[in-house]
Amino acid sequence: MGTIRAFAPATVANAGPGFDVFGFALEKPGDFVEAKRVSEKGVRIASIKGDNGKLPKDAGKNTAGIAAQLVLGMLGKNAKDGESGVEISLEKNMPLGSGLGSSGASAVAAAVAVNELFGNKLKRGELVLACAKAEEAVAGFHADNVAPALLGGFVLVKSYSPLSVVKIGCLENAFFSVATPDFELSTKKARSVLPKEIPMKEAISNWGNTALMIHALHTQNVKLFGEAVNDAVVEPRRASLIQGFYDVKKSALEAGALGCSISGAGPSVFCVSENKAVAESAVKAMQEAFSKNGVESGAVVSKMNVKGAAVL
Amino acid sequence: MGTIRAFAPATVANAGPGFDVFGFALEKPGDFVEAKRVSEKGVRIASIKGDNGKLPKDAGKNTAGIAAQLVLGMLGKNAKDGESGVEISLEKNMPLGSGLGSSGASAVAAAVAVNELFGNKLKRGELVLACAKAEEAVAGFHADNVAPALLGGFVLVKSYSPLSVVKIGCLENAFFSVATPDFELSTKKARSVLPKEIPMKEAISNWGNTALMIHALHTQNVKLFGEAVNDAVVEPRRASLIQGFYDVKKSALEAGALGCSISGAGPSVFCVSENKAVAESAVKAMQEAFSKNGVESGAVVSKMNVKGAAVL
Repeated sequence: MGTIRAFAPATVANAGPGFDVFGFALEKPGDFVEAKRVSEKGVRIASIKGDNGKLPKDAGKNTAGIAAQLVLGMLGKNAKDGESGVEISLEKNMPLGSGLGSSGASAVAAAVAVNELFGNKLKRGELVLACAKAEEAVAGFHADNVAPALLGGFVLVKSYSPLSVVKIGCLENAFFSVATPDFELSTKKARSVLPKEIPMKEAISNWGNTALMIHALHTQNVKLFGEAVNDAVVEPRRASLIQGFYDVKKSALEAGALGCSISGAGPSVFCVSENKAVAESAVKAMQEAFSKNGVESGAVVSKMNVKGAAVL
Repeated sequence: MGTIRAFAPATVANAGPGFDVFGFALEKPGDFVEAKRVSEKGVRIASIKGDNGKLPKDAGKNTAGIAAQLVLGMLGKNAKDGESGVEISLEKNMPLGSGLGSSGASAVAAAVAVNELFGNKLKRGELVLACAKAEEAVAGFHADNVAPALLGGFVLVKSYSPLSVVKIGCLENAFFSVATPDFELSTKKARSVLPKEIPMKEAISNWGNTALMIHALHTQNVKLFGEAVNDAVVEPRRASLIQGFYDVKKSALEAGALGCSISGAGPSVFCVSENKAVAESAVKAMQEAFSKNGVESGAVVSKMNVKGAAVL
């Protein structure tokens, strides 16, 4: 078996109207995990790169480590002889707390690598719960990042108890631009600005748009998808946590993007475009808008990821 | 041209989770309108059958009459010579205030008949606004009944200003049972029990289910559609307005129905089943449950209507 290297992609949770239920995977960026069997039982994290020293190397406190432990347990590898332990190395390629599902990608890459290391006995769908539990350790129990990172495409979390997800499909001709401002926004803080009650009118707008978004996916209609990226509930309440958000959004739409909102809990902002040229103009415009607001930002243009995490 | 006879079907608005945005058409029951050209300008209602004398014969106060007037106006028939006026006869086949889009069906049948009478110059989609305006006179501006009655199948109202609807498709293999208890529930009263604010948690449940319902429609998955007939927001608040509602719902599900909720503003209750035999058992069980609660009820088993209103 030697060493297994796995990739798990960044994800855009919520996708505008679908707070807590929608998420889709990008082709890039993403995290890498290398896993190898060792004789010492359990999971050990050998190294972490790209986190600026911020992540714990204790396997029980790191989403990659927790996911690896849970998958080992599912494989029944806790109490067996031989090389039943795992040593993992994590290589992060996206900032923490950026709204791109960074902690989820690490969990997914680790889960996929460990599963592969022991003969790929578990299906992707079976790994969702373990990865969601790993996420729980850092950002509450949620699956709108780990499910699309595992399965690829656009995913609906249709139930949390029990956890049940459905892969809707992939918007094949769309291009997504993501601008990630250079500051961290914790999911906890981003959740703290959300009220327990919301106006019925706003809720109706969002359930119309989640429905429209699924229709857009099934009809491969990028324009309609852009129209559905319209969040009356969460975006207005989180906008103030992202310096210059409305300027960034305006600049993306003026550059030709069809819809724009916050990626996950933010502060990353994403938009959707019908072609690559527009997506590249849009992301430049978004970066400039952030810059005018005193914030530097990273930029990515990516299609939707069809297959999800991959063993390399 | 002579006389035109048109049919418009009953509709199930909301469909569970999609309050104010979803509606679908049934094959039966439905209203009929006969329209003929007359030399007197404007619209006159010659007769109304099946309403127990409850509906106004003043064309300006009756949804069929208002829709006919608006369509005449769109056709530019207000000020021309010759037989530019219309006389309509309305035949109602469903109770008023029953939650089956009764007033909307009358408006749609009239609009379609008048359009046909003058050469069918307007497309179905162009009639939606006129019919929604006619509905406004009796039940507030809404399109979740008239749009499916006009277009057939399952419709999403994606915007109210401007009014914009999209036909999603038709769940071809599903059977719908509807039990209509023998009392009237006004839309106004049914709306009065809804709060202006709702818990975020309930809203999230509904936007997950509207998304799931659209996915079910696109994949022709009746079971998933039934799962999505799950309304955390409106149903619990309106249940007490419908005597025996929870007994009726329980009996439908126990008979094998896959999902059950209130049709439109109620008091009709609908459920969805995978085959006709189950749908018929379910509707009998629903009627018995109503009966045990001291309410008699009418029953219909119908497939989803593919084409909407029809000229006969």
